[in-house]
Amino acid sequence: MSVRPEIEEGTRLEPRFDAAGTLPCITVDAETGEVLMFAYMNQEALDRTIQTGRATYYSRSRKKLWVKGEESGFVQHVRELRIDCDQDCVLIKVSVEGGASCHVGYRSCFFRRLKPGSSGELEFTESKKVFDPEKVYRRSS
Amino acid sequence: MSVRPEIEEGTRLEPRFDAAGTLPCITVDAETGEVLMFAYMNQEALDRTIQTGRATYYSRSRKKLWVKGEESGFVQHVRELRIDCDQDCVLIKVSVEGGASCHVGYRSCFFRRLKPGSSGELEFTESKKVFDPEKVYRRSS
Repeated sequence: MSVRPEIEEGTRLEPRFDAAGTLPCITVDAETGEVLMFAYMNQEALDRTIQTGRATYYSRSRKKLWVKGEESGFVQHVRELRIDCDQDCVLIKVSVEGGASCHVGYRSCFFRRLKPGSSGELEFTESKKVFDPEKVYRRSS
Repeated sequence: MSVRPEIEEGTRLEPRFDAAGTLPCITVDAETGEVLMFAYMNQEALDRTIQTGRATYYSRSRKKLWVKGEESGFVQHVRELRIDCDQDCVLIKVSVEGGASCHVGYRSCFFRRLKPGSSGELEFTESKKVFDPEKVYRRSS
């Protein structure tokens, strides 16, 4: 185990971005603790998230900042920001306007689990979508 | 929004590994829902996790499989495995032998949060370590 006390036990936020300049971010519901989604931040997304209090991510495929809810209205208000031991992963606790965080329409992106005893079959854990993506997202996007 | 119904709404586990052959994994406590740690799996780690019921990760820096708790004794027994909408992130719910998941000695790796109103100062959310890493990990490692 490497020992880097200033990173692992210090009280300065010193995020260690990867080679692509991004940091994984886990987003959980501030009230229930449920994991809602997983995305990435770059330095600018992290700064804006802290400054504005609105979860802002960096899309690695589209190579641009992405304010969650800008299009769908499901804005995430950040109640707490945590960093892990190695300072290479962020966790934010958010309150979600409208209650949905997944673009497919569910509350959480993790709406399927492996069936007990199966190695490849999934079952749904959310039975109902919060919204219809066809109606929420512009068709051109 | 891209629409890939077989990935996003299908009932087959079809994990989409990144260019390096890895998949991010969020590990939460099966009882409390607390996020414990963040790591990566490759195909073999995922297969072994499913087959053995013990959380097995892939270390991208050491380039090898890593059975959590093999050295420390803090084994993670997998109670549930979820996959996200895009099937490019896994979430496992685990019961942890000994109750610690962070190599620094804390229950969770996310033991620090940004102080309210600060942009760079952290405060600890766990006041006491579960174990002393100096005693648990071999000094040679």
